[in-house]
Amino acid sequence: MTVAAKNTRILLASRPVGRPVPDNFRIEQVDVPTPSTGEMLLKVRYLSLDPYMRGRMSAEKSYAPPVAVGDVMEGGTVAEVVESRNDAFRPGDLVLSYSGWQSHAISNGRGVVRLDDWPAPPSTALGVLGMPGFTAYAGLLTLGRPRAGETVVVAAASGAVGSAVGQIARLKGARAVGIAGGSVKCGLLLQEFGFDAAVDHKSPTFADDLAAACGKGIDVYFENVGGHVWDGVFPLLNTFARVPVCGLIAQYNSMGPFEGPDRLPVLMRAVLTRSLTIRGFIQTEFADQRPAFLKEMGAWVAGGQVRYREDIVQGLDNAPEAFIGLLEGRNLGKLLIELA
Amino acid sequence: MTVAAKNTRILLASRPVGRPVPDNFRIEQVDVPTPSTGEMLLKVRYLSLDPYMRGRMSAEKSYAPPVAVGDVMEGGTVAEVVESRNDAFRPGDLVLSYSGWQSHAISNGRGVVRLDDWPAPPSTALGVLGMPGFTAYAGLLTLGRPRAGETVVVAAASGAVGSAVGQIARLKGARAVGIAGGSVKCGLLLQEFGFDAAVDHKSPTFADDLAAACGKGIDVYFENVGGHVWDGVFPLLNTFARVPVCGLIAQYNSMGPFEGPDRLPVLMRAVLTRSLTIRGFIQTEFADQRPAFLKEMGAWVAGGQVRYREDIVQGLDNAPEAFIGLLEGRNLGKLLIELA
Repeated sequence: MTVAAKNTRILLASRPVGRPVPDNFRIEQVDVPTPSTGEMLLKVRYLSLDPYMRGRMSAEKSYAPPVAVGDVMEGGTVAEVVESRNDAFRPGDLVLSYSGWQSHAISNGRGVVRLDDWPAPPSTALGVLGMPGFTAYAGLLTLGRPRAGETVVVAAASGAVGSAVGQIARLKGARAVGIAGGSVKCGLLLQEFGFDAAVDHKSPTFADDLAAACGKGIDVYFENVGGHVWDGVFPLLNTFARVPVCGLIAQYNSMGPFEGPDRLPVLMRAVLTRSLTIRGFIQTEFADQRPAFLKEMGAWVAGGQVRYREDIVQGLDNAPEAFIGLLEGRNLGKLLIELA
Repeated sequence: MTVAAKNTRILLASRPVGRPVPDNFRIEQVDVPTPSTGEMLLKVRYLSLDPYMRGRMSAEKSYAPPVAVGDVMEGGTVAEVVESRNDAFRPGDLVLSYSGWQSHAISNGRGVVRLDDWPAPPSTALGVLGMPGFTAYAGLLTLGRPRAGETVVVAAASGAVGSAVGQIARLKGARAVGIAGGSVKCGLLLQEFGFDAAVDHKSPTFADDLAAACGKGIDVYFENVGGHVWDGVFPLLNTFARVPVCGLIAQYNSMGPFEGPDRLPVLMRAVLTRSLTIRGFIQTEFADQRPAFLKEMGAWVAGGQVRYREDIVQGLDNAPEAFIGLLEGRNLGKLLIELA
C-alpha cells in the first residue's frame, strides 16, 4: 500500500551568507517512498524549528556535520506511523523521530520513540519534554549547578530552552532573572513562567536594568544568545560563577571577522580573577540523564510546576520564513510547524 | 633581646603603568621590630618572587586586595625564628611564612608552617612543594583531569608551575608538551623535566611547531601566559578539552583596551561547538588538598620522579630587577631571592 499523497519536502538550496533568506531553501514534491522490510512510513505532524539548524546550514565544522546542499533540512518531528513493516511499530502509532523538513519519511525505527504513554500533549516531545527542555535541564543542573538563593540568569528566556531554565532554577530554590526582547516577552516571563525579574535587552538602559535586577550579582548565566547581552552579563558574574554555553543565536548569522576592541584578554582576566567556569555543551553528552529528565520534568509539566508555550505555524511551506524569524526572535515560545 | 641589624625592606613606591620599573619600588632600612607576647621575630632566608605579585601592584580589583602604596611588598618566605615569645616556635626553627620583601618580620605564628620534617631542601617550600607546585598539582588534577594517553600542554613550562604541570601530567600517563621561550629553556624541558616535546614560542613557526608536536590535538591546556601563545593553542583544542586558567603573565603589564579584531565571539563559538571548559582558579580554593599534595608530591620529589630547578638571586636589593625580569621570562626555573 502506498499513500496517494505526495511527499512535500524542503531542501537546503544554498548556504546562507549571514542571515538566511528564502532562496536558501527549495520546496519540492516527490513521490511518497515505500518502506522495505523492517522499515515504516511516517507522516509528519509537527516539525520542530530550532536555532541549531542555522549551524547545519553552514559548511563550517560544528558538533554535527552540515546538511549537504540539495539535501532535506534536518529536524526533529512528531509523526504518525502510516504503514509499518517493522514489528515494533503499528499504523496509528505516534512517534518522536528525526524526519526533517518533510511531510513523509521512511524510518527503520532506530532512534524513534513511541509516544503512547507521553505525560503531556505529543508536541511537547519537541519542546519542554524534548531536546530543548532536556538541554535546559541537563545544562542547568549538571553544569550550572544552581544552589538555593543563587541568581540564575538566562537570555532568550521566553523561548523553549530559556523558559525551562528559569522554571527549573526556581524549583531548585534559585532566583531566576530572564532576559528577553520587548515588553510582551518580558510580561510572559513574569506572568506565565514565574521569573523573579524580567529585563528587556532592547532597552537602552539594558545593562543598568540587568544590574538592578541582579543585586547580588550572577551565579549562573545560561548562555544561549551571545551578542550585546553578554556585555551586560559579564561585569555581574560573581566569583565562581558558572556559564554553561548552550547557544549563541545572536552571532549565528555572522562568522566574523569581528571588529575590535578585542574582548578576549578582558574575558580571560575575569576568568582568572573571578574563578569563572565557562563550559560549552550539547545535550547529547548527557544522554544517560534522559530517563531521569523525563521522569522529573514529566511530573513537573503534568503537575503544572513547569509551564510551556508553543508558537505553532501552520503548513510546511511556511517553515523557511518561520525559521528566519526564529533567528531574529520573532517567535513567542517553542516554534513548531504543524503539517496538514 | 633585639638583633643588632637593621630591617631592610622593599616598599611599593608607586603603581606601575604597564611594565614595572625600578622606581616603582623603594628600599629602606628601619629598626628591627621587637616581638610582643605570643609573637616571634623572623629573619628571612629566601623570598619567593612570583608573577601574581604584578597583580598586587595594581589598584584594580583581583582575587586579593592590592598592596597599598608605601607598604612592604607581599611575598612568601622561608625564614628562621630569631626570637620567640610564642610557645609553638623556638629560635633556630626554619619556617614557611608570608613575611614579604624584607629581611625581618614579626609573626604571631598564624599561617606559619614549621619545616623541620620537610622532605626536601627548605627552599622547595616556596617552589615545587609550595604554592607554585600546589597550583600545578591542584589545577592540573582537579580541573585539567588528564587521562592516560591525552595530550597536556603548558606554557612557561620551565618555570615553577609549568615544570611541575608537565611532570605530573606524565606521571598520570599523559603526554606532556611544554612551551617556553628560547632553546635553552626548551632544552631544559626535554633533558631535565622529561617533557615529550618542547616548542619555542619565540620561533616564527611557533603555531606550526605546536601543531606538529600535538598530532592528536590538545586535551588539557594549562593556561598561565595568555598572549600570542593562546592563538597557537586555541585551534588545537579537542572536543571536551579543559583549560584551567592559572595565570596570564603575557598580559599582566597591559590592562587594555586591547585592539581588535575581537576574538571573543570566535572563542565562544569554539567553546560551544567543541564543548570546551575554561576555568579560572587560584590554589587557595583547593586548600583541603594540601595534605594530599604534600604527601604525594613530597614523595615524588624525594624519589626524583619530579625534578625542580631554582634560579636563586643573591640579595634583597636585587629583588625589583629580578621581579621585572620574571615578567619578561628572564629567569630559568623558580625565582628566589636569597638573603644574606
